[in-house]
Amino acid sequence: MSSNHLNHTIHSHNHHFGWDNSIEPIIYVKPGETIQVDTVDSSGSQLNETSTINDVVNLDFSKVNPVTGPIYIEGAKKNDIIVIELIEFISSGWGWTAIIPGFGLLSESFSNADLHLWKYDKNYPLNSLFSEYAKIPLNPFIGTIGLSLEKKGNHSVVPPRKSGGNIDIKNFTKGSKLFLPVEVDGALLSMGDTHAAQGDGEVCGTAIESPMSVIIKIDLIKNQHIKFPHIETFSSNNSIDNKGSFIVTGIGPDLLECSKNSVKEMIELLSKKFNIPDSKAYMLCSVWC
Amino acid sequence: MSSNHLNHTIHSHNHHFGWDNSIEPIIYVKPGETIQVDTVDSSGSQLNETSTINDVVNLDFSKVNPVTGPIYIEGAKKNDIIVIELIEFISSGWGWTAIIPGFGLLSESFSNADLHLWKYDKNYPLNSLFSEYAKIPLNPFIGTIGLSLEKKGNHSVVPPRKSGGNIDIKNFTKGSKLFLPVEVDGALLSMGDTHAAQGDGEVCGTAIESPMSVIIKIDLIKNQHIKFPHIETFSSNNSIDNKGSFIVTGIGPDLLECSKNSVKEMIELLSKKFNIPDSKAYMLCSVWC
Repeated sequence: MSSNHLNHTIHSHNHHFGWDNSIEPIIYVKPGETIQVDTVDSSGSQLNETSTINDVVNLDFSKVNPVTGPIYIEGAKKNDIIVIELIEFISSGWGWTAIIPGFGLLSESFSNADLHLWKYDKNYPLNSLFSEYAKIPLNPFIGTIGLSLEKKGNHSVVPPRKSGGNIDIKNFTKGSKLFLPVEVDGALLSMGDTHAAQGDGEVCGTAIESPMSVIIKIDLIKNQHIKFPHIETFSSNNSIDNKGSFIVTGIGPDLLECSKNSVKEMIELLSKKFNIPDSKAYMLCSVWC
Repeated sequence: MSSNHLNHTIHSHNHHFGWDNSIEPIIYVKPGETIQVDTVDSSGSQLNETSTINDVVNLDFSKVNPVTGPIYIEGAKKNDIIVIELIEFISSGWGWTAIIPGFGLLSESFSNADLHLWKYDKNYPLNSLFSEYAKIPLNPFIGTIGLSLEKKGNHSVVPPRKSGGNIDIKNFTKGSKLFLPVEVDGALLSMGDTHAAQGDGEVCGTAIESPMSVIIKIDLIKNQHIKFPHIETFSSNNSIDNKGSFIVTGIGPDLLECSKNSVKEMIELLSKKFNIPDSKAYMLCSVWC
């Protein structure tokens, strides 16, 4: 997309740390407008293409996971939904994956820092990149994208939240739409933590962390409520007709409770969108996904 | 596969309930042999093509989830691995999905029984079937398949176990291989609970429950240990080269602990099979799956 199709551009120095509804918006946009958002990588530029393991050890955690924004969406009020369509990525061509001591699913077993630097073809679409051990298909997406919280104060960007944030869902890639529930006037959208690829879980704590610019289109659905982020994809090799998928989430500290909440959310979606009775929707969730 | 390629056939009346290493084997087989195993559906034939919701309400739980077997595999000892290759399904052409009060992820929200009966084309390969609400792609697989436990007594078939059992992994379908750790002499393999299709989780407690015959080939790997069941598939639309996937599991009562165990298991697999150092394997798990 050439820049003359864009309504706005936000440069990456306009970033903040944590969710805080008192942070002044960088820009005001109208539903239907298109924005280029430049992001910083999740290290907050502390790591670069020449970094070493020592730089991982010395990371300043107060500077990690910056998010570019906030973007004020005109007309957005509590109990509306913001829709973010991911139009395009402009990739930097490099990325990093690290084991950061004390961080990640197996932090008890991996106490030593490690770092892997990646280079890949900047010209999108990208198909694959290589390490010395494996060939990884690229799948750029935005790891952290969320709306400001109603609750005052500064809230860590690390845990994902009902209004989005560090959700790290790899299906939110080019051509997909993300639906987030609005908590405050103007919604106050911010994003960062772009990934060139990730597994279904960011298990070591980092993915292929790669600064990118993203082009998004914003829309607003008035007076509709969802409890957690939803995603709609427009193609999927997992469906009969390749028409894409509806993806729901259930976000919280307990995995079993999250599983229950996400199934409830899908039952509600099937009921609202396709008029399927709850018990039939529950059975459908059990026989396919 | 015509029956003259088979080494053995086990009929479905040769089933048992629960894992119990004192149950006498039905047959003795050698590694490399091929067996047709006829299964009963997970209701233990209490439900059929004319059943109603009332039959679900009156289910006798002492008769659910029968498994055909046990099959004694000659030469199998503790700390070996049994490999089960799934050669073919012979489908019955019908199935059921039910909400059973007190059972399923959302049992607190769904207290009323429900039943959906399915019919589908018996001639395999099957592509899809229909309910009044949706079109579901078929993906027949064996829901419950496991080896006898070392621990004496009769152990419920409901929870999945380290040596397999009610694992309900939809990737264990035609052409795939399942790897199970042996706990007792002869391994004592049994199976049942065949599904015509299932989501990634059997969230309502039942999938498309469908009695089938399965043709399997048994192999034995001596003196190799895995902690949990593994699966190897031979095609996958999720990989670069469509050559299939290695799937590992982490089975237990706590989802977070299971997640950790499955990542550890994949790191060990990548280390053993491809000589990838643990920290690199951990990072690879984080950037792709």
